[in-house]
Amino acid sequence: MLKQISMFAVALVTCWVGSYIEAKHPRLLLTAEDVETITKSIHESPSFTQSLNETRSRVDAYFATPPDVPEPTDAGGGYSHEQHKSNGIAIREAGIVFQLTGEERYAKYAEMLFTEYAEMYPGLGEHPMKKEQTPGRLFWQNLNESVWLVHAIQGYDAIVSTLDSAAREFIERRLLRRMARFLSEESPGTFDRIHNHGTWAVAAVGMTGYVLNDQSYIEKALYGLKKDGSAGFLKQLDLLVSPDGFYAEGPYYQRYALMPMVVFAKSIENNNPELEIFSYRDGLILKTILACVELSYGGLFFPINDAIKDKGLDTVELRYGMSIAYALTGDASLLSVMEKQRSYVLTGDGFKAALATDQEETQPYVHQSVLFRDGPQGNQGGLAVLRSESADSQQALVLKATAQGLGHGHFDKLHWLFFDNGSEIVTDYGAARFLNIEAKNGGRYLPENLTWAKQTIAHNTVVVDGKSHFDAELSVAEQFHPEVQYFSDDGSIQVVAATIANAYDDVEINRTLVLLDSVVTDGPLVLDVLTANGSESHQFDLPLHFNGQVIASNVSLEARTESLRPLGQENGYQHLWLRAEAQVDQEDMFSMTWLKDDRFYTYTTQAGTPSQVFLAELGANDPQMNLRREQSVILRTNGSSRVTFVSTLEAHGEYNAAEEFTIGSEGSIKSVEVYSGDTQDMIRLEFKANDTVAWLALSYDSSPDQEHRILVDQVRTFEWTGFYGWFEDTANP
Amino acid sequence: MLKQISMFAVALVTCWVGSYIEAKHPRLLLTAEDVETITKSIHESPSFTQSLNETRSRVDAYFATPPDVPEPTDAGGGYSHEQHKSNGIAIREAGIVFQLTGEERYAKYAEMLFTEYAEMYPGLGEHPMKKEQTPGRLFWQNLNESVWLVHAIQGYDAIVSTLDSAAREFIERRLLRRMARFLSEESPGTFDRIHNHGTWAVAAVGMTGYVLNDQSYIEKALYGLKKDGSAGFLKQLDLLVSPDGFYAEGPYYQRYALMPMVVFAKSIENNNPELEIFSYRDGLILKTILACVELSYGGLFFPINDAIKDKGLDTVELRYGMSIAYALTGDASLLSVMEKQRSYVLTGDGFKAALATDQEETQPYVHQSVLFRDGPQGNQGGLAVLRSESADSQQALVLKATAQGLGHGHFDKLHWLFFDNGSEIVTDYGAARFLNIEAKNGGRYLPENLTWAKQTIAHNTVVVDGKSHFDAELSVAEQFHPEVQYFSDDGSIQVVAATIANAYDDVEINRTLVLLDSVVTDGPLVLDVLTANGSESHQFDLPLHFNGQVIASNVSLEARTESLRPLGQENGYQHLWLRAEAQVDQEDMFSMTWLKDDRFYTYTTQAGTPSQVFLAELGANDPQMNLRREQSVILRTNGSSRVTFVSTLEAHGEYNAAEEFTIGSEGSIKSVEVYSGDTQDMIRLEFKANDTVAWLALSYDSSPDQEHRILVDQVRTFEWTGFYGWFEDTANP
Repeated sequence: MLKQISMFAVALVTCWVGSYIEAKHPRLLLTAEDVETITKSIHESPSFTQSLNETRSRVDAYFATPPDVPEPTDAGGGYSHEQHKSNGIAIREAGIVFQLTGEERYAKYAEMLFTEYAEMYPGLGEHPMKKEQTPGRLFWQNLNESVWLVHAIQGYDAIVSTLDSAAREFIERRLLRRMARFLSEESPGTFDRIHNHGTWAVAAVGMTGYVLNDQSYIEKALYGLKKDGSAGFLKQLDLLVSPDGFYAEGPYYQRYALMPMVVFAKSIENNNPELEIFSYRDGLILKTILACVELSYGGLFFPINDAIKDKGLDTVELRYGMSIAYALTGDASLLSVMEKQRSYVLTGDGFKAALATDQEETQPYVHQSVLFRDGPQGNQGGLAVLRSESADSQQALVLKATAQGLGHGHFDKLHWLFFDNGSEIVTDYGAARFLNIEAKNGGRYLPENLTWAKQTIAHNTVVVDGKSHFDAELSVAEQFHPEVQYFSDDGSIQVVAATIANAYDDVEINRTLVLLDSVVTDGPLVLDVLTANGSESHQFDLPLHFNGQVIASNVSLEARTESLRPLGQENGYQHLWLRAEAQVDQEDMFSMTWLKDDRFYTYTTQAGTPSQVFLAELGANDPQMNLRREQSVILRTNGSSRVTFVSTLEAHGEYNAAEEFTIGSEGSIKSVEVYSGDTQDMIRLEFKANDTVAWLALSYDSSPDQEHRILVDQVRTFEWTGFYGWFEDTANP
Repeated sequence: MLKQISMFAVALVTCWVGSYIEAKHPRLLLTAEDVETITKSIHESPSFTQSLNETRSRVDAYFATPPDVPEPTDAGGGYSHEQHKSNGIAIREAGIVFQLTGEERYAKYAEMLFTEYAEMYPGLGEHPMKKEQTPGRLFWQNLNESVWLVHAIQGYDAIVSTLDSAAREFIERRLLRRMARFLSEESPGTFDRIHNHGTWAVAAVGMTGYVLNDQSYIEKALYGLKKDGSAGFLKQLDLLVSPDGFYAEGPYYQRYALMPMVVFAKSIENNNPELEIFSYRDGLILKTILACVELSYGGLFFPINDAIKDKGLDTVELRYGMSIAYALTGDASLLSVMEKQRSYVLTGDGFKAALATDQEETQPYVHQSVLFRDGPQGNQGGLAVLRSESADSQQALVLKATAQGLGHGHFDKLHWLFFDNGSEIVTDYGAARFLNIEAKNGGRYLPENLTWAKQTIAHNTVVVDGKSHFDAELSVAEQFHPEVQYFSDDGSIQVVAATIANAYDDVEINRTLVLLDSVVTDGPLVLDVLTANGSESHQFDLPLHFNGQVIASNVSLEARTESLRPLGQENGYQHLWLRAEAQVDQEDMFSMTWLKDDRFYTYTTQAGTPSQVFLAELGANDPQMNLRREQSVILRTNGSSRVTFVSTLEAHGEYNAAEEFTIGSEGSIKSVEVYSGDTQDMIRLEFKANDTVAWLALSYDSSPDQEHRILVDQVRTFEWTGFYGWFEDTANP
């Protein structure tokens, strides 16, 4: 395999020589042809004009004061760090504004900064605050230096034709080549690493190669330092992203990793179109861009793993990504996503999208139910997204059955999330981090990211014996992954099922989630069947983290009124204040209703054994008050080796303050019963209205044509084909 | 005075006889002339057409099933209660749709319901669930019956011309006259009461008088049962609303009281224009409508006193009010408020507004700084609203120095609120009530409304010795009110000051709030100088209820990590969990920064004496979990007889997740010092930037031309004229 790739690489290298056109600049994301098109037609696109004007104003303001290129002294977030970051962006923006306006002073601005950097750079050693194994020179880590060069080289590409040969020689020799060399040969651990830091490095070096017409840089960027395909951009595309465009760490980092991927890919496409980079692995880059859109709700990414919850589709990474996706596909529904981004990137693709929008070609974007397979070959579990309707205010149900996701992964196998009416309803805490907020540990990850956010109890999946999956050991967790057993997005009953055998030594976990859209009830209904199967007796906790004001419960919750204590001592439990508790008898279910905005949500759960319910609030053992004050409800059973939790979640009713009415404030589930066969489960749901009864039969067998039957209570036989069967009675048999 | 009003009444009664035109219907909010205008021009107003179509669809759906006029059995929120409410509205809507479409079936729908009610009504005694002193027949309280009649009589007015004389006689004799009689002579306690229930009653009876051409009803509605002006609508206008249009109970109930006031006033205007009701008391009704708009932020009413926090300008009451205000004034800026209401009332005035909007006459609405005097004569304190800019996202600072506000008033003299960036930042809990949510005490006020929401500690004002103002005794509180000493909305420094001598036996409280707009600092800065002056030693607590995530404090807050306990045992303190505390030395200030959405807020406070700081969260002693989990910070001093709290609040910086930057996350205040003279205070504010120092001198003397001087530290004399002086040094003297 390695040999094959290597030969392919050589063949491509041979192609370049002929097609590379020496003197034509710019040539990266904005090409000379783009500049011609845009300057000719910009009056036809008020949106693009506005984006250009905003950038121009920013550049004017930036260069209103003399350039500031400080000695590199500070770590991330510090003064010199932020200043260099800003300078890199300013160089790019000044260069682009020069190209699109033709005003020479913008080229001069960029040149001024380049000259200062070229004077300083050769004298720099390792950064004084160098970070662990990957020190930079301008910055504490070389990741930031790669990002800087990705920006700056675009600025250089834009102004190089205005420079005399002495200036070019000075900037290229002292700064650009030195930096490219530093980021490649001199930082092999990052450059050849299959990781998003590596993608930034190859993008920086490869784009520099195109601008300086240096094939060696280009080859290294594409095929690794050894130029043999064992590393480099293509190898990264092989290993970092699944065949469905899912990035291992999850959508928050997918967004970050997307940036170097798409800007480098577009640069490759513009300079070596014969490489057909956008066709690589069946159009992987486009899939990766579009996956970001499907991995979001209400414009925000699903906050699985380490994630900052207010990141979404309006980020700069997605502005680049969407403009490229639109140029590749001409899909007018992507324009509606871009309209919410509120500005357009100043590239040829950005112009195409802005122009089409101004010409009112926009179509609504329709979300789909999707299973994203995880892993380079797509066989390491996956993330399932079930959607009942397309509009933003409608439901999304997410089952996380992915592999661990490197160091940013959380220990939450078969965790689920639910979104409705514009909000996250069944929630994920995301990361314990206040990004860029100096007062909170310098904006870095907080200690509570490890003690709370990554722990299993912080998620909506089963916790056995109070311990996290894999004992929260990354090295163990990385060896295993769930299997997705079944996925069906067919019609009004959508089903996904997955299993993980190794989260605990003795316990196998299986979860089936069903999203019913106006079946039996008027609105959406989620069914959740989770089985935990061990050989010895265990404690099983099923937490649900919910968003809203508790309104009612079927069993009285005994609230702690005079003092609060933590629910446990470790593995995340130490952060939960126990606010209230209740007992649930063997044959009963627990039901709780909360209100979020103008809609009610009723959750019912039962384990078929005597259980305890805990209502908990986050904030215990949090000396720095780093945690948000969120809520959860936990169902606990003890003393059996196997448990089947059957839970339902309904969105229902309306609380209308302006018109002063409330309708449908009660859930519709009257009772839930489980009949377990040897390998099958039968769930009986009784509804309050009209004595309706519905049955969900689960064979757990994904063979589509296999016939199954189950005998219930010795009196009634149900027969179905495939993974599940659905039956409705209008009267109790 | 009484005699004068009475004579005026007689004179008006004389006028009517001539001007009343017997047979012309409809004649209330929608007149025969309106119908002619609207049906001729409705095609010119898509907005009005849409509102009509929506109403028509609602009526079609409502009458798709046979009429349901149940036996009155249930209390508020119950089935028969809700059904009668809906029927009353359906009668009105069916009648109006008949008038505007000419389709007879709509008249028939209304007649059907009228006939059923006319059959049932004479047989009804007191409602089985009768409420306290004011029982109804159809409803548990006669308030609901008045509301029903206000709706139904408009429907009757719309269809009466389609009825034969037998049907008219049947409905009028058995239902309308009986109900009007019941609501007037037979319920004198409500009808003659100066209270919003009385306003509903007089509106119902008076409007019935116009439709049935019964002068006795009209006279009673206007001048009371005795027809002498001692009660009735005009007396209510004299006593319920202040000369500035402020309703004693606060904006939430002002909205509710507004409805009968404006619909009756419009009916009077249409039938007795010579009464010039809209000119009464210098245009009081218009002032009352417009006050609702000024008593809001981001479309929601300031939630002082008992208030449901999600009520605002999009309520049906304001739709009627705004359409009348627009018709009276032609002020195109009101149209922008109405556009956010999303539908138009089906009246002549509603049509005028919809048409003007469709003709794009809308102008932006600009909020003003306003002092609303409280009390019938305007001499019982007031509510001050300071605004720095007009756009919705900008600041509003509210000082509540009003009288008690009847039974819905809270014990919170000199309480303040602050709104910014679209949100409530310094908050009022509002009412402890989930309106219309059956599971929460049937939607009624919760016990915690008394034990928490009304108590002083639930507000942003000083608590002496852990007790609420007036010991939370309504009868005591109603005897006193604050005095507004000073109000200036002049330019970039706006000031309001008020005092209350009787909230505590021994302590007089004085508060001055200053809103600085980009003076010294870049953004808004609030200064709060609160003096509590007693003769004996007391404990003084200054709470601030804030909205956001705590980010940093200057003194380390020692968080409770292993258990939480209530902060106190009574007067609201029992509901606060003590989450963290800190000590503040005599010369120091306490400073805390929180993040709300994308903006930072820094609050500093100091008492000039050794103090404790408590960070508290709501939820203790709340067995039903009725309280929202909100936060407060409390500064406590002990052992002195007098304290001056000087606090500042800044909105600053930006947290931008999409663009990954944070700027200005620190507050700008370096230190605060107070120099107190005999009757004056001097506040010295030192800022972090450029050693800037600013001084606020307070004479507490509202005489505009009085000269004042103060000598600070024996070295520097400041001289100013009037209530306050403002001085800035660029270097420390």
